[in-house]
Amino acid sequence: MSTPTALGGVIPPLTTPLDADGEVDTASLERLCTFLVTAGVDGLFVGGSSGETALLSDSQRQRVVEVATGVAGGQVPVVAGAVDTGTARVIDHARAAAKRGAAAVVSTGPFYVAPHPAEVVRHFRLISGAVDVPVIAYDIPSATNTRLPQSAIVELADSSTIAGLKDSSGDLTAFRQILLATAGTGLRVFTGSETVTDLALRLGAHGQVPGLGNVDPDGYVRLGRAAAAGDWVTANTEQERLLRLFAIVDVADRSRIGFTAAALGAFKAAQYLRGVIDVPRCADPLLPLVDREIDAIRKILLSEGIGVER
Amino acid sequence: MSTPTALGGVIPPLTTPLDADGEVDTASLERLCTFLVTAGVDGLFVGGSSGETALLSDSQRQRVVEVATGVAGGQVPVVAGAVDTGTARVIDHARAAAKRGAAAVVSTGPFYVAPHPAEVVRHFRLISGAVDVPVIAYDIPSATNTRLPQSAIVELADSSTIAGLKDSSGDLTAFRQILLATAGTGLRVFTGSETVTDLALRLGAHGQVPGLGNVDPDGYVRLGRAAAAGDWVTANTEQERLLRLFAIVDVADRSRIGFTAAALGAFKAAQYLRGVIDVPRCADPLLPLVDREIDAIRKILLSEGIGVER
Amino acid sequence: MSTPTALGGVIPPLTTPLDADGEVDTASLERLCTFLVTAGVDGLFVGGSSGETALLSDSQRQRVVEVATGVAGGQVPVVAGAVDTGTARVIDHARAAAKRGAAAVVSTGPFYVAPHPAEVVRHFRLISGAVDVPVIAYDIPSATNTRLPQSAIVELADSSTIAGLKDSSGDLTAFRQILLATAGTGLRVFTGSETVTDLALRLGAHGQVPGLGNVDPDGYVRLGRAAAAGDWVTANTEQERLLRLFAIVDVADRSRIGFTAAALGAFKAAQYLRGVIDVPRCADPLLPLVDREIDAIRKILLSEGIGVER
Amino acid sequence: MSTPTALGGVIPPLTTPLDADGEVDTASLERLCTFLVTAGVDGLFVGGSSGETALLSDSQRQRVVEVATGVAGGQVPVVAGAVDTGTARVIDHARAAAKRGAAAVVSTGPFYVAPHPAEVVRHFRLISGAVDVPVIAYDIPSATNTRLPQSAIVELADSSTIAGLKDSSGDLTAFRQILLATAGTGLRVFTGSETVTDLALRLGAHGQVPGLGNVDPDGYVRLGRAAAAGDWVTANTEQERLLRLFAIVDVADRSRIGFTAAALGAFKAAQYLRGVIDVPRCADPLLPLVDREIDAIRKILLSEGIGVER
Repeated sequence: MSTPTALGGVIPPLTTPLDADGEVDTASLERLCTFLVTAGVDGLFVGGSSGETALLSDSQRQRVVEVATGVAGGQVPVVAGAVDTGTARVIDHARAAAKRGAAAVVSTGPFYVAPHPAEVVRHFRLISGAVDVPVIAYDIPSATNTRLPQSAIVELADSSTIAGLKDSSGDLTAFRQILLATAGTGLRVFTGSETVTDLALRLGAHGQVPGLGNVDPDGYVRLGRAAAAGDWVTANTEQERLLRLFAIVDVADRSRIGFTAAALGAFKAAQYLRGVIDVPRCADPLLPLVDREIDAIRKILLSEGIGVER
Repeated sequence: MSTPTALGGVIPPLTTPLDADGEVDTASLERLCTFLVTAGVDGLFVGGSSGETALLSDSQRQRVVEVATGVAGGQVPVVAGAVDTGTARVIDHARAAAKRGAAAVVSTGPFYVAPHPAEVVRHFRLISGAVDVPVIAYDIPSATNTRLPQSAIVELADSSTIAGLKDSSGDLTAFRQILLATAGTGLRVFTGSETVTDLALRLGAHGQVPGLGNVDPDGYVRLGRAAAAGDWVTANTEQERLLRLFAIVDVADRSRIGFTAAALGAFKAAQYLRGVIDVPRCADPLLPLVDREIDAIRKILLSEGIGVER
Repeated sequence: MSTPTALGGVIPPLTTPLDADGEVDTASLERLCTFLVTAGVDGLFVGGSSGETALLSDSQRQRVVEVATGVAGGQVPVVAGAVDTGTARVIDHARAAAKRGAAAVVSTGPFYVAPHPAEVVRHFRLISGAVDVPVIAYDIPSATNTRLPQSAIVELADSSTIAGLKDSSGDLTAFRQILLATAGTGLRVFTGSETVTDLALRLGAHGQVPGLGNVDPDGYVRLGRAAAAGDWVTANTEQERLLRLFAIVDVADRSRIGFTAAALGAFKAAQYLRGVIDVPRCADPLLPLVDREIDAIRKILLSEGIGVER
Repeated sequence: MSTPTALGGVIPPLTTPLDADGEVDTASLERLCTFLVTAGVDGLFVGGSSGETALLSDSQRQRVVEVATGVAGGQVPVVAGAVDTGTARVIDHARAAAKRGAAAVVSTGPFYVAPHPAEVVRHFRLISGAVDVPVIAYDIPSATNTRLPQSAIVELADSSTIAGLKDSSGDLTAFRQILLATAGTGLRVFTGSETVTDLALRLGAHGQVPGLGNVDPDGYVRLGRAAAAGDWVTANTEQERLLRLFAIVDVADRSRIGFTAAALGAFKAAQYLRGVIDVPRCADPLLPLVDREIDAIRKILLSEGIGVER
């Protein structure tokens, strides 16, 4: 199995397929894992924002890790989200995930509360001291409403408290500064972007965690390989295609459903259309896309060269 | 025991006393409950923002409800926070609290995700349908980063899906609009303010949930009684004293600790100085106040007529 | 003429009537001034946010002051906005207004730039030193995107640098703190609220600057008189009526026009319907309300007991 | 002289050198223009955010354009900011600048007010119709607090209402989308970034407007030339050096002065140390850097290979 420091490449943040009752759809999740591994991804990230972790119960979160590690079977590492508001809660999730085979766990800084950067550092130190697997810090201000302070990230990397960073801030200046400031520390820096992944790789990102990789993992694998080969023309062409594909998240009528339902519902609709999952629903209380919206997504998939089965 | 619709008056949001190891300090929590009930409060709200619920594990949250219901013994209702990011998670907390004797449960809208107002309504409908106790909606944008939409609150009140609203938005225009729009629905509307409580009562609030009530419950009980008697001069004088007392939350050096640690640390320091709790620490990862800061809080307590034992 | 320290009571922030070409409609503005003075207001505030000052040219701003001081003729003071991004610009506006008879000028803190509280203090010191009329500080974070720091206001009041504060923050806790902190300094504190004006007066506000006073000055005059007489039942009844009337700002279809156009367009539509102004248009680039929306405003006016002429 | 559509390359947004009295220091401004032109820049952008336009009086703004066009003498185009809150005000600035020889004018969307995207479009249409020079739209949400809507930019480009866009949003996904969506319209798209300029150029940006170009124009010229030649290794090396140099904006003690004073004060301190301008002060009400901070900037300049004269 990959050692933690080897984490890298394409590690999509899996959606969590649910059945009509809102329970984890094990068969669909297994198919999704297989679909991604077959496409050549380098790891599976379950229980992240794209996995609707905020909307899953503890038992659902744990089930997802079990299924993913079962399918991955050591072929690729499974990274598990341990997303919660405070240290004690994150540690409980992290231990449960590690016990079920997660190769690393991912935590944001504390949210709901308003911590000082020194308290953010302490949060990660306590988590890291409480679990046996590497900890990856997750900067996603659109969800937590605060940035992980750059100084905290550097301090945590210097002390090897965290093994990685997933950056979903959209701020490439900070991304570049962190890559430069943590060079030599062994920190693995991942971009969570779907749309400037190529630029992040060019800056030296160690890997990519694109939500849209749920829909077109082959595209991101090709993008990653082109980047690794220094073939930036191909990388750019692939990225521009993926940018057009990403328009699926703008299909839903936002006067009816929220942004999360629109984006994750689009990923699931595309997976459903491709025959990977059985039901395109999101977790409660998110509302579903309607047929007209799913039709529009089908058209976008087809126009970007992605075959559908439904 | 109070029926749900009778909820009202002063219901302080209890801090969660912790011991030196960070575990729930049962003896201190019992003293705190007794301290508040003796002061004449009308209910106990445990597991709210002031209770550091975001930083407590599930078992700690449940322990707090057990201790509070044990002390309250039916004299006053215990309202329990069921604060979490999504519907399934809130339901799990709410059921655990109801099982341990909570008379009502309190939930914010979904956070971390970005829901539509219709999804917020659905969130509360699902919670309400899943538990046997009344549900109180909690509007605290400083923590969740979004407002509960006014239209959603009115719809939930009209359908008796929620029994109450705790408003910690600081927005008295919206508070007034909600009171007027839900008059006749039976919705119990509570202010979470420490500093304009009198104004909220004047507008017709059914109760108050002031964090500073942890420190000076007698003051808020006096304020509530003056308001109920229409004695607004006394209410104003009491409120201005409490406003000065509230300065304890500004004592800590914010270049060292965050806002949550400063505010809740001040409440706990004051409870410690008054001899109510044994250890003034907050939950991980929050950093403690230093002696100099605790001294400054002691001075403010004394200058506002509050005796200290330490 | 009123001395600056006597500023108080109802001082509506006038809309700026424009003709079909977008130029200042002098006849309508004169009628508006007369309409307000006849209703018993205690001053006229021209060139504020409700006056679309941000959208007027320098010559239009100056024309407005000339017309208002001409009509007021010393019966009531005319306060003039000197709203701009930086000190030098504000001083130029302030001098132009003072020259045309303004009894006081109103300035926000610097915006577009990101100043330190010490720089905000310096801003007002420089303005105050450059003009012969009193300066009123204007806290309107919805427009400037930052609050006037409380410490800065207190420092400016203590040194008599500013003569007044117009608070449009909606934050009654801060409003109360400022009133208490500046008691004895002579600072005149005004609320910019339409909807909790009564509460602000109860806290000790020296005056009110309600945008909706453009539409129903009699209502705010009655509210102010009831408050001055300690008749809070009448004040509350009047305020609740004005709150319902304020619904006119929510009439416009926000998928078509912005918030400013919806709110100020509603004020102007109501003034037009009442026969006070001739054309209900806003300044470029704001889009106008449509007939259906103006009809809806007419209905609200009538249902709140306000006669219309059109 | 360059035709408008030929605008491109390095067009630094000049600081506005001031003398000890806060007036435009003509001699220093002339030296600055010459310094930049000599370094090989392709245009001069005066009266932008880096030029403290928000803090300059109208006459100071006009003087700056006169001096710059005088020095440029047609060798390079002078682009002038026409930054103000509303359409009429922007048009006045734009006409004054055009009259003084500006080759194009730059306007943000309306601010202080809250416009609808359709009103933003109308704003630019009215400006464009009122002046004889090309209009460049300026997206700087850190100053105006709103984004220019992407749909508006595309509509304005499609209709040739605007000739260019200066993007200072820091959002490279949107930058990429706009470049793709406006390809073929002739829109010239400029990045305002100092730190990911190379990435913007790689995406197809037509030019760069880096504030730090005030300090090291040679660096940005080299970066632009390397990018134009497809030599991304050199571009990256240059960009990383400039990123380190950009640390000068973080030198000032932010407990004493604001962000704008820290950043623009650093640019001016560096220009002063290089002997380009005589006085490193900012416009009122911004506070100056202190000697210790200027010393720290000197050290950074020297360590990045930039000679100083003071």
